[in-house]
Amino acid sequence: MPARQRRIGVIGSSRSSPEGARLAEAVGGLLGRAGAILVCGGLGGVMEAAARGAAAVGGLTVGLLPGTQAEDANPYIALPLPTGLSYARNILVVRASQALIAIEGSYGTLSEIALALALGVPVIGLNATYEDPKIRRAGSAQEAGSLALAAAGEAG
Amino acid sequence: MPARQRRIGVIGSSRSSPEGARLAEAVGGLLGRAGAILVCGGLGGVMEAAARGAAAVGGLTVGLLPGTQAEDANPYIALPLPTGLSYARNILVVRASQALIAIEGSYGTLSEIALALALGVPVIGLNATYEDPKIRRAGSAQEAGSLALAAAGEAG
Amino acid sequence: MPARQRRIGVIGSSRSSPEGARLAEAVGGLLGRAGAILVCGGLGGVMEAAARGAAAVGGLTVGLLPGTQAEDANPYIALPLPTGLSYARNILVVRASQALIAIEGSYGTLSEIALALALGVPVIGLNATYEDPKIRRAGSAQEAGSLALAAAGEAG
Amino acid sequence: MPARQRRIGVIGSSRSSPEGARLAEAVGGLLGRAGAILVCGGLGGVMEAAARGAAAVGGLTVGLLPGTQAEDANPYIALPLPTGLSYARNILVVRASQALIAIEGSYGTLSEIALALALGVPVIGLNATYEDPKIRRAGSAQEAGSLALAAAGEAG
Repeated sequence: MPARQRRIGVIGSSRSSPEGARLAEAVGGLLGRAGAILVCGGLGGVMEAAARGAAAVGGLTVGLLPGTQAEDANPYIALPLPTGLSYARNILVVRASQALIAIEGSYGTLSEIALALALGVPVIGLNATYEDPKIRRAGSAQEAGSLALAAAGEAG
Repeated sequence: MPARQRRIGVIGSSRSSPEGARLAEAVGGLLGRAGAILVCGGLGGVMEAAARGAAAVGGLTVGLLPGTQAEDANPYIALPLPTGLSYARNILVVRASQALIAIEGSYGTLSEIALALALGVPVIGLNATYEDPKIRRAGSAQEAGSLALAAAGEAG
Repeated sequence: MPARQRRIGVIGSSRSSPEGARLAEAVGGLLGRAGAILVCGGLGGVMEAAARGAAAVGGLTVGLLPGTQAEDANPYIALPLPTGLSYARNILVVRASQALIAIEGSYGTLSEIALALALGVPVIGLNATYEDPKIRRAGSAQEAGSLALAAAGEAG
Repeated sequence: MPARQRRIGVIGSSRSSPEGARLAEAVGGLLGRAGAILVCGGLGGVMEAAARGAAAVGGLTVGLLPGTQAEDANPYIALPLPTGLSYARNILVVRASQALIAIEGSYGTLSEIALALALGVPVIGLNATYEDPKIRRAGSAQEAGSLALAAAGEAG
């Protein structure tokens, strides 16, 4: 029984800005190199960029999909998990993650942040749309990855 | 086939302030007198106060419970619906409602507001903790009820 | 605080036989006259026939819908509850009910029966497709309604 | 982008017989050696035995847990996914899998089989409790693994 890898969620818009995509890909790469599992919603934008970054360095990528078709996952998702739960899959992304990195994002992302804060899952904001005293702000992809990995480590 | 009654959700903390409870009870009464169905999470605080107000005037009260026991519902809930889905029941409260009134509230309430705004369900804030350009702010229980009923009417 | 009405679920195919529809409508009428709330999946076939029977005698009818649109409910549903959970709404029908009457049905109905038996919710079979030692078989709509109401009464 | 590994679910009782555990462990080993991902409910009995077999040969093991704690997973689960959805996680096991192997099992397993057959996910029965014309019966762990892998291959 090897020790379990840390599970870090990356959340954000399916229509990210170029800067958001760049940050997400860098974060994915950092998480993959650190041996963490990338958890996300499996679709485009921030989710796809983060998965691309993680997959490029051999990291495991998990996509919790709102729909019923594995084919909906972006091509960098190694493990597509269709849920058929629509927006209720957001809570699964939160529960699956020991820490979350929020990159930009809109109301869907805010719902995940709020659920995470309600449940005590650490949230790191990177170029984040929303502010809250409980969101730790990172100034770079490097810092976001380090904060998330440290928080997940604490989470055990 | 009679026309369906409007379905208005009231969301907020299970540990409301005295002022929050007073407002919620007034809102519940207004909704009940208007012939609307009160949808809520079925537990204490704002949910119980709103249900008490609605039940007192003969309104139908629905509680979508996070747990598995109907007995968890507050005593003013006529129709307890145990879901066993934990926080994922929040999305059910949002989807069941044609408009939402948010009274005070913490992160759980914020997750419901965010989901509602993502889905296009109108949100009215009353003594609300959170602000957003898409939340319509009401200055009184009367105004909150009127705005919600009007929004639900539009929703059809 | 009036005593809560009993909540009885009626499950079965959305494409029922004429005999299944006749039985479902009779069951709905019996439940409505007994002052019970009819819980179902809100769509066609057995669900629609049961709701029609209940609505005709003034009973409250609740439809837990798999999709996101209240308009998907059959016209006899007074309280449509869109869940957006697809097949996961089946478990909500089971959890919402103090007893279930299964009329005909296919694999979706079998999944509800199995969940009910796993959770200890009494199941009454009427012209049922599936047999199990724990399913109580009724020979008529009258008997099915009586068995379900008695079981729900025991459930408290 | 490497081709995705096949995802095979193994379902059955959390209190398996010695024979059921032996079969599940053998199935897990076969799936792991074939490079498939083992999907299961993450708890004891058949789920634990299958994960033990897969982990022993380096296969990836995924546990979709009904509760909220990753620590509830058996020690052979590399990727614990707490859902907090209680029995509604059963549908997630079905949707995550391209084919299912049912080993013994009680009503919870039957609910998964029924959902799979409703959704068109192939089900292979091994020492199975339930029979249905659509369940393919395997006479050995080897045959069950081969049938599931072939069915998942067809599923694409």
